[in-house]
Amino acid sequence: MKKDVVIIGGSAAGLMAAVTLRKRNPQKSVTVIRNVVKTPVPCGIPYIYGIMGQVDKDLIPDQGFTDQGIEILQKEVINIDRTRKEVEFSDGERLGYNKLILGTGSKPFTPPLPGIDKVNVFTVRKDPVYLKEIYTALEPSRKVVVIGGGFIGVEMAEQIALMGRRLGAEKTVTVVEMLPHCLMLACEEDFCIEIEKELTHLGVNLKTGVQAAELIGQEKVSGVKLADGQLLDADVVIIGIGAQAEIDLALKCGLEADARGGIKVDKYLRTADPDILAAGDCASKFSCITGNPSGIRLASVACSEGMLAAGNLDGPERATLGALGAFSTMVGKRAVAAAGLTSRAAAAEGIDFVVGEVTAPNRHPGHLPGSIADMKIKLLFRRDNGVIIGGHVSGGEAASDMVNIIAVAIQARLTAEQLAIMQYATHPLLTSSPLSYHVMLAAENAALKLS
Amino acid sequence: MKKDVVIIGGSAAGLMAAVTLRKRNPQKSVTVIRNVVKTPVPCGIPYIYGIMGQVDKDLIPDQGFTDQGIEILQKEVINIDRTRKEVEFSDGERLGYNKLILGTGSKPFTPPLPGIDKVNVFTVRKDPVYLKEIYTALEPSRKVVVIGGGFIGVEMAEQIALMGRRLGAEKTVTVVEMLPHCLMLACEEDFCIEIEKELTHLGVNLKTGVQAAELIGQEKVSGVKLADGQLLDADVVIIGIGAQAEIDLALKCGLEADARGGIKVDKYLRTADPDILAAGDCASKFSCITGNPSGIRLASVACSEGMLAAGNLDGPERATLGALGAFSTMVGKRAVAAAGLTSRAAAAEGIDFVVGEVTAPNRHPGHLPGSIADMKIKLLFRRDNGVIIGGHVSGGEAASDMVNIIAVAIQARLTAEQLAIMQYATHPLLTSSPLSYHVMLAAENAALKLS
Repeated sequence: MKKDVVIIGGSAAGLMAAVTLRKRNPQKSVTVIRNVVKTPVPCGIPYIYGIMGQVDKDLIPDQGFTDQGIEILQKEVINIDRTRKEVEFSDGERLGYNKLILGTGSKPFTPPLPGIDKVNVFTVRKDPVYLKEIYTALEPSRKVVVIGGGFIGVEMAEQIALMGRRLGAEKTVTVVEMLPHCLMLACEEDFCIEIEKELTHLGVNLKTGVQAAELIGQEKVSGVKLADGQLLDADVVIIGIGAQAEIDLALKCGLEADARGGIKVDKYLRTADPDILAAGDCASKFSCITGNPSGIRLASVACSEGMLAAGNLDGPERATLGALGAFSTMVGKRAVAAAGLTSRAAAAEGIDFVVGEVTAPNRHPGHLPGSIADMKIKLLFRRDNGVIIGGHVSGGEAASDMVNIIAVAIQARLTAEQLAIMQYATHPLLTSSPLSYHVMLAAENAALKLS
Repeated sequence: MKKDVVIIGGSAAGLMAAVTLRKRNPQKSVTVIRNVVKTPVPCGIPYIYGIMGQVDKDLIPDQGFTDQGIEILQKEVINIDRTRKEVEFSDGERLGYNKLILGTGSKPFTPPLPGIDKVNVFTVRKDPVYLKEIYTALEPSRKVVVIGGGFIGVEMAEQIALMGRRLGAEKTVTVVEMLPHCLMLACEEDFCIEIEKELTHLGVNLKTGVQAAELIGQEKVSGVKLADGQLLDADVVIIGIGAQAEIDLALKCGLEADARGGIKVDKYLRTADPDILAAGDCASKFSCITGNPSGIRLASVACSEGMLAAGNLDGPERATLGALGAFSTMVGKRAVAAAGLTSRAAAAEGIDFVVGEVTAPNRHPGHLPGSIADMKIKLLFRRDNGVIIGGHVSGGEAASDMVNIIAVAIQARLTAEQLAIMQYATHPLLTSSPLSYHVMLAAENAALKLS
């Protein structure tokens, strides 16, 4: 039995590829293979522990996909027979394909720390069974250390603190981050500090600028020793320090990896095998801004690539713009969002740039409900041609959509001048005043510096 | 005494021109002249009556401008002596200028209805004293009719209903709209219906598809007679059926008006007088999408034009893109937003277009707090070149910022293909899933129809 299209991986890239195929080529059969019982909403994982309260509330229902005629199999793929064009399963069965999309995703990076194998030390894997184990361990815990202050670490810390309140027994939660601030790879430093304030306000302890050195305890973890000698008590340790592409299967069947550990693909997401494409976290990436190899692994990139791969199965049609890096999160009452480069990253790339910035309330008049008096935006533009290369927003819930104005502007290569003279919808209950709409005014602020 | 720059009009266009000048040419003196005691936040006016509860809460503080060295005068300008380059005030004084910006705005259109002069019949003028008169009349009223179901009418109706609840005596509020639905000039029909549902839910009565024929009563209004013979009781009648450019002063000093009643300006906002520019509601407009003359009068356009006019005083530097028409509002729990053309308007312009649409929750998983399960977006693209010409959003508070993604896309002339393959930030607490981010998926939906 041969399927028209087989997709290995049932998360963002795989599901988006499948859905796109059903729309673009409804006559083709599509089978998605995953090695987990259900697909969790990846970005929703931290909220399992806090506001959602159970793993089952964070699962993507299969029905939305099977109703479209997509077949979903839970199987372990152990090899790809590229000559016979078949995938081989752990149960000995095989499934033939005409075209194959690899969406094998990524796995959490596990640091080589002494004691890493102790009980109650967890990374954050996208597997509902494993996520339930974390839940069970966290439930009675009183002292939790989160190693890594990126998005996952910060969100896990917040939600574990909320879990404690929900269960009526506060937990002491501490984040350990080696950089000077949390979220520093994605966000401007002052915005990181705002999120840190929210964490502190929620009772989360921060240990920044210091690395974890060792996990101590008997069979079970009992504490984390930091590089500066401090000892943090811990019933549970959560590690969220990044992810690496899951490429074992690709390597096993003879496909190549790039220097950053992704399956080598061209801009049409084609591997060296004309019948195999790769999309999402497992595939190699380049920066949409610099064109250089990129380590960005995000659902937004995976969804875009899944869509493109599905359209490119029968020949190159649409090329990826490269990985942008568009993020948002909310901690306490504050949302921060980022697209493209931070000032630090731009400087590290040797780009000469100017920053346009504006602080203004996100309502007008500023005392209307939902107001955040000091909503802030920073936009980064290349000095040589005025083109936008990054943008950062700190404010209320709409920050995530505002950053997508910036995401589009970056991907369309708009300039400060163009963004300054455009018109933007505003409303008293929903945005800042038109006299200070953040994107417009920050662009004008930069245009002045560029002129 | 001669000022470097005199600006007549202290609302959106005038204030933005003044602020831009202080930033671009801090050595120049700037004087803003207005004929009202304070400048109200124009879009905030409806909220005076409901959630704000007083006119004074809707005033733009002068201090933010005077602190920047902008002089604000409350004076009545009765003429402009273009030969001597002086403005003449009603008190006999004169003020010389080197450059003049007209930002005289617009005045509410007053329909030639029998009984229009009766007591307690109001238009919505941007004058705090007049707005207080409306407040005083509304306070004891029990039956209010709002003639006109555009943004002002809908928002006034909602807020007057809320005013009744706030004061502990419910008001019977009825909106009379001649078109089949409220908001129909700006929004897609199904989105208009959603807002109408919110109004009905708040207890507001709707009379659509029918015109007001006569205002009845003795000295004071007591009711509104509709063209179909219905009679609506009314203690107060509010009229919000559009605005016309305020150009008396411009005409008096010999400047010309265009066919749609705006002061004739070129794309640099220059009048025929080399020392006079005009910006905002008083100036002529063309559509950013079709290039045809436009009647759009909005604070977002005024702010953009004020900024441009200030930069063009010493010679043409930046041209307007034309009026876009970017709107948003919130009624009850629903926000709707629009940029560019509706399906009706595009068809009326003879444009062949396709619509891409998506309905998906604005959170993921969809049961997270703040979720609107049926957040909807529609994007309109020209069939001949795939370029976006309109976009409509119905959802929660972030709709206004999402529509600005669309506003930027329209003004940058992006295509469905471009918007479909871009990456967008998403977050469980803030947006839809990356598998269904509305802008991306609606663009892909349209791209399929275009291919």
